[in-house]
Amino acid sequence: MKATQFYFKTRKEISKDEVAISAVLLTKANFIEKLTSGVYNFLPLGLRVIKKIEQIVREEMEAIGGQEILMALLNPRSNWEQTGRWDSFKALFKLRSKYGSWFALAPTHEEIITPMVKNYIYSYKDLPLYLFHISDKFRDEPRSKSGILRGKEFIMKDLYSFHQDEKDLENYYEKVKKAYQKIYKRCGLKAYVVEASGGTFSRFSHEFQVLTPAGEDIFYHCSHCGMNRNKEIMENTKKCPECGHKIEELKGSEVGNIFKLKDKYSQAFDLNYRDEKGEIKPVMMGCYGIGISRLLGVIVEANYDAKGIIWPKETAPFQYHLIGLFKGIKKEDKEIKKQTDLVYKQLIKKGLEVFYDDRESVSSGEKLVDADLLGLPQRIIISEKTLKNRSFELKERKSNRIKIVKLKDISKII
Amino acid sequence: MKATQFYFKTRKEISKDEVAISAVLLTKANFIEKLTSGVYNFLPLGLRVIKKIEQIVREEMEAIGGQEILMALLNPRSNWEQTGRWDSFKALFKLRSKYGSWFALAPTHEEIITPMVKNYIYSYKDLPLYLFHISDKFRDEPRSKSGILRGKEFIMKDLYSFHQDEKDLENYYEKVKKAYQKIYKRCGLKAYVVEASGGTFSRFSHEFQVLTPAGEDIFYHCSHCGMNRNKEIMENTKKCPECGHKIEELKGSEVGNIFKLKDKYSQAFDLNYRDEKGEIKPVMMGCYGIGISRLLGVIVEANYDAKGIIWPKETAPFQYHLIGLFKGIKKEDKEIKKQTDLVYKQLIKKGLEVFYDDRESVSSGEKLVDADLLGLPQRIIISEKTLKNRSFELKERKSNRIKIVKLKDISKII
Repeated sequence: MKATQFYFKTRKEISKDEVAISAVLLTKANFIEKLTSGVYNFLPLGLRVIKKIEQIVREEMEAIGGQEILMALLNPRSNWEQTGRWDSFKALFKLRSKYGSWFALAPTHEEIITPMVKNYIYSYKDLPLYLFHISDKFRDEPRSKSGILRGKEFIMKDLYSFHQDEKDLENYYEKVKKAYQKIYKRCGLKAYVVEASGGTFSRFSHEFQVLTPAGEDIFYHCSHCGMNRNKEIMENTKKCPECGHKIEELKGSEVGNIFKLKDKYSQAFDLNYRDEKGEIKPVMMGCYGIGISRLLGVIVEANYDAKGIIWPKETAPFQYHLIGLFKGIKKEDKEIKKQTDLVYKQLIKKGLEVFYDDRESVSSGEKLVDADLLGLPQRIIISEKTLKNRSFELKERKSNRIKIVKLKDISKII
Repeated sequence: MKATQFYFKTRKEISKDEVAISAVLLTKANFIEKLTSGVYNFLPLGLRVIKKIEQIVREEMEAIGGQEILMALLNPRSNWEQTGRWDSFKALFKLRSKYGSWFALAPTHEEIITPMVKNYIYSYKDLPLYLFHISDKFRDEPRSKSGILRGKEFIMKDLYSFHQDEKDLENYYEKVKKAYQKIYKRCGLKAYVVEASGGTFSRFSHEFQVLTPAGEDIFYHCSHCGMNRNKEIMENTKKCPECGHKIEELKGSEVGNIFKLKDKYSQAFDLNYRDEKGEIKPVMMGCYGIGISRLLGVIVEANYDAKGIIWPKETAPFQYHLIGLFKGIKKEDKEIKKQTDLVYKQLIKKGLEVFYDDRESVSSGEKLVDADLLGLPQRIIISEKTLKNRSFELKERKSNRIKIVKLKDISKII
């Protein structure tokens, strides 16, 4: 992609309301744009990352049997009244049609999926069943300073599982834990599996925490036995309640949570099945969430330096940032431009994701500053100096390691 | 995909509220499920079609320079007040946060994209610019009988274009017309480009109409000069106002509309640019919509028979419907099952999209009825009879043409 053909303009000045480093960097680098507190637009660069995260999540959900669906965001009031959450779900957005009906804007989808699968689940033969969906969610959160980490509108993947009994639910719950770890690893993150209270959902839940300097959550970690527990559900202590060893207090950003709902929602909606002996039993359920747009923010919170973002490979909007150090005035400049164009064509031909800063009106210094801010994994620089050796400079954003590579060896860098 | 591993159960009985043939067939065949009037969930089969339509639209938008973004659905009241549409847009859903602010649920995105691009467009060098997004839209429509053809919540692609002058807008407008025709053709539809009034948007617009038996719109068509005009903006006549020849009255379903907004929204939001001479001028805009979920419905309205849906190739959820006529009792049945499994593996290995009805508890008759209802383009039947000739039956859903193909020639059918 050529910068001159792309919606791309880095910004020096942004609103002072923006304090979370992820929102600051993503706004300056042109990935997102704040519409109002807790509500963001995703620009072409940001949407590329969102789609990469979605695809990673989709692949890992399908690998554990998940089937993708898409549920509505306008939810009838009656569905939410049936579970009592029309009143008890504090962050529920409510609205009224001018024709009379009331709706909730979906903050989660138990109230929709549970009655929906009643048209599918009749017998034990229809179980287990795993359905997930990737879509917007809405929560009426107080004005926050977390940028895209906690919004009024956000993109979420939610998976729902349906089982014959608790044992089958337990087994699948463990399977999802592993799938989640794969997802975070592919996103370049290390996540701790932390015992959690579960809030409005259930008392049997875990959350996934990534260590970040600005993390909002505190949890205790025991390096001896591996215990991780959210501070909210544990008494203030310096010893591990499991093995007695000394524990650490860690600061994390939540990137997912999973809940054993058991029969909470199947009871509310009368979701039963007939077992092998013909007995009617309630379906056991689990639910498993990952905030996709939140993950975009956490990846940045965990991967940046003073100059800008440092994208992990699998979620970078592009893999290579190509820059020719020319300004188009001197004869040498034209040669640099010509060679850089050539390298761009070669890389594109190989099917690589290249962001080519071909702007002629911008100084070399600015281009280098923008490249650091954008934070693509590899930078390729072609200059008068490198061309004297018929070569280019390849620099890794993360390590700052520089390699000088001959132009003729370009196919070897991949 | 094997039926036994898929969220698949056709339904004989559905709600009597559902009258539009597209909603009836898509519900019976397990593509969609009604949540409440005008609001639908997309089941795995339905989401597969939605994604295919989205991908066709995306490719054609990118082919004319469109860059994809994703804008928020919660829109601040102030954006809608600035154009006066907070009050004048009749179908606007409004809601209030418990922290005080009012929001609109986006029914279209001019009020969001116009101020957004003010951070990008400064000079003539930043123009033209083409941005599109694919997302949910909300409109507070009265209770309707159109199923997914006209909903309170629906999926839409909207493209916005920004230009230096009307001439550039005109040129791009014609380009979009051609791109739209490509989209409909790939979706298996023939669309008429019809002059339209434009309603709330602009007086300079066209809509795309597909002839369907239950079409809601009426337009006049002149086969001599090609004039098409919506009945709403034309006086009742039998002669073409352009060439004087006799005209026909046709019934269509709208599948898209395009508008020359000119400076309506750029004036409202003060979106200007500096031209080559340094003069400040308003940006000229166009907007171009295609209802993705509506298109799903119209494809069915235009392609069905008494037995069920007839999917056009590019939007079918799967290309092949594979059925082995076995019930798993006799020795011959086992041989049929074995051969059908083998054919499935061969087709999958070739990367084909196959829906394999491997249910053992369902009769052959039911499987054939379900296949007709589902309406995949090609049906492959393996039975005791075909196996005697070491062959299978290949039947085209649309034409009912049957070919007998030798099993060893399976790779030739593709």
